Amino acid sequence: MKLLLYTVRWLSILLMVVASPAKSQPTQPYSYPSSEVVRIHSQLLNEERKVYVHCPKVDSTDKNKRFAVLYVLDGDNHFELLAQYVEYLSRPDVLAMPKVIVIGIPNTKRTRDLTPSNSLLNYEGKPDSSSYQGSGGNEKFLQFMATELMPMIEKTYPTAPYKILAGHSFGGLASLNCLLTHPDLFHAYIAVSPSLWWDREYLLRLAAEKVKNGSALHKTLFFSDGNEGGRNSFFHKHLVKLEATLAKKKLKGLDYLYKHYPTETHMTEPVVAYFDALRFIFKDWEKHR
Amino acid sequence: MKLLLYTVRWLSILLMVVASPAKSQPTQPYSYPSSEVVRIHSQLLNEERKVYVHCPKVDSTDKNKRFAVLYVLDGDNHFELLAQYVEYLSRPDVLAMPKVIVIGIPNTKRTRDLTPSNSLLNYEGKPDSSSYQGSGGNEKFLQFMATELMPMIEKTYPTAPYKILAGHSFGGLASLNCLLTHPDLFHAYIAVSPSLWWDREYLLRLAAEKVKNGSALHKTLFFSDGNEGGRNSFFHKHLVKLEATLAKKKLKGLDYLYKHYPTETHMTEPVVAYFDALRFIFKDWEKHR
Repeated sequence: MKLLLYTVRWLSILLMVVASPAKSQPTQPYSYPSSEVVRIHSQLLNEERKVYVHCPKVDSTDKNKRFAVLYVLDGDNHFELLAQYVEYLSRPDVLAMPKVIVIGIPNTKRTRDLTPSNSLLNYEGKPDSSSYQGSGGNEKFLQFMATELMPMIEKTYPTAPYKILAGHSFGGLASLNCLLTHPDLFHAYIAVSPSLWWDREYLLRLAAEKVKNGSALHKTLFFSDGNEGGRNSFFHKHLVKLEATLAKKKLKGLDYLYKHYPTETHMTEPVVAYFDALRFIFKDWEKHR
Repeated sequence: MKLLLYTVRWLSILLMVVASPAKSQPTQPYSYPSSEVVRIHSQLLNEERKVYVHCPKVDSTDKNKRFAVLYVLDGDNHFELLAQYVEYLSRPDVLAMPKVIVIGIPNTKRTRDLTPSNSLLNYEGKPDSSSYQGSGGNEKFLQFMATELMPMIEKTYPTAPYKILAGHSFGGLASLNCLLTHPDLFHAYIAVSPSLWWDREYLLRLAAEKVKNGSALHKTLFFSDGNEGGRNSFFHKHLVKLEATLAKKKLKGLDYLYKHYPTETHMTEPVVAYFDALRFIFKDWEKHR
């Protein structure tokens, strides 16, 4: 029996070798622009975190150059896309934005780190104890970014002061929470379909309360939603409400763009929204170079 | 002298080690989804060509799976972006399109390979003998694709019959030329800002002549232009004219989409246009799975 098995296995391997068509030439791996994985032990979160870093290649002419930094939440979903956008859009024959350093932050406990309040309610406002245990740690996560991650990045890479925070869904919620509670951590914020349904519109309530009429908020903000249940979806309603709140407060210095993508799903939207967000944030860059 | 040189060299190495801020943890390279470079000797073009190949990772459940193939011209500009789009949009949590094989074709002699006729006229219709010498080789290049490149790819990788040709600028010109002269080579065509100005609107004349009123052309076609000199730019005028020609001929079976991107330049447009093109080509895919 064992012998038979061996014979069959060997025969099938032989057949595979004979049957597989030969490649016309030897191949070699394609080299993508290099990025790296950096590990950092967080005392605040009491865990090891890794981050993905894409740092522009520095040639001899810009050895002293320093680069703005784009921090991307949900790193496993969007780091590669944003690194690709930055590479392409900063090419000398495209020049739509400067080279920037991209930092992708993959999740360990996504709900813990990205939600601004402790809640067990799902998007319909009904209790869902299984999914949202331990929620509400975004403040601590932002502290980790401010006091552990960002100093390490700034010590290690040729960073300029300008910083962007980008997030999608719960990541968008975290990005807006940072804008409202620690606006000075970043210069620009991107919130792609932020989950404003969280905890009975916690963040919309926070915005109404925190943002004072006529106050100054010298920041750049891009936010958007897709087709997440049509025109009547709660995503769309909430984003429209956020824009109305911002418009009503007549803030000084806030340069914002809200985009609705009726043909994109919750998961395809980031592809076009992150591109539009970069185009918006760097719209005047070419002028000022 | 030699000793002094050694001492200086060693001192400078020592100083670098001391002065460079220590990273908190050792780093490791980030691994992008692997792609490869394949070389093929073309008898037709009498030169060695390389192509970039991004083939989906096949897991044990889809060992017999075969994948549609997306051929991208100007491979050095757009291969990485398209490989990234395919990777992301075919993820199980996104599922906006199937996994496909992406083939990027970098240029050797761009003008020779991508222009459909021999001409020395520039975009203003004025003679420019220096730039366009040797133009008009697109027919031979399409022969190379049909008889040398595509058979090699189909022998080597798990290809399904469905094929897409994508190009930008001169590459868009080549894509449309293929649709008009060898429509059966591909199932879908993408032409992002095709250089329809080429040779006194050679391709618009060819379209008017080749495409018979009411004839059947069961193909998918996406074409677009950006802001290339505003509403009155020749790019925009030509694309509008192309759409008018297609509409007037009342073709049977041609599923086409024309998009104008007024906020994008000639070089930023491919980022959003290639995304929209993939979304258009695979719009009914989810339904038919």
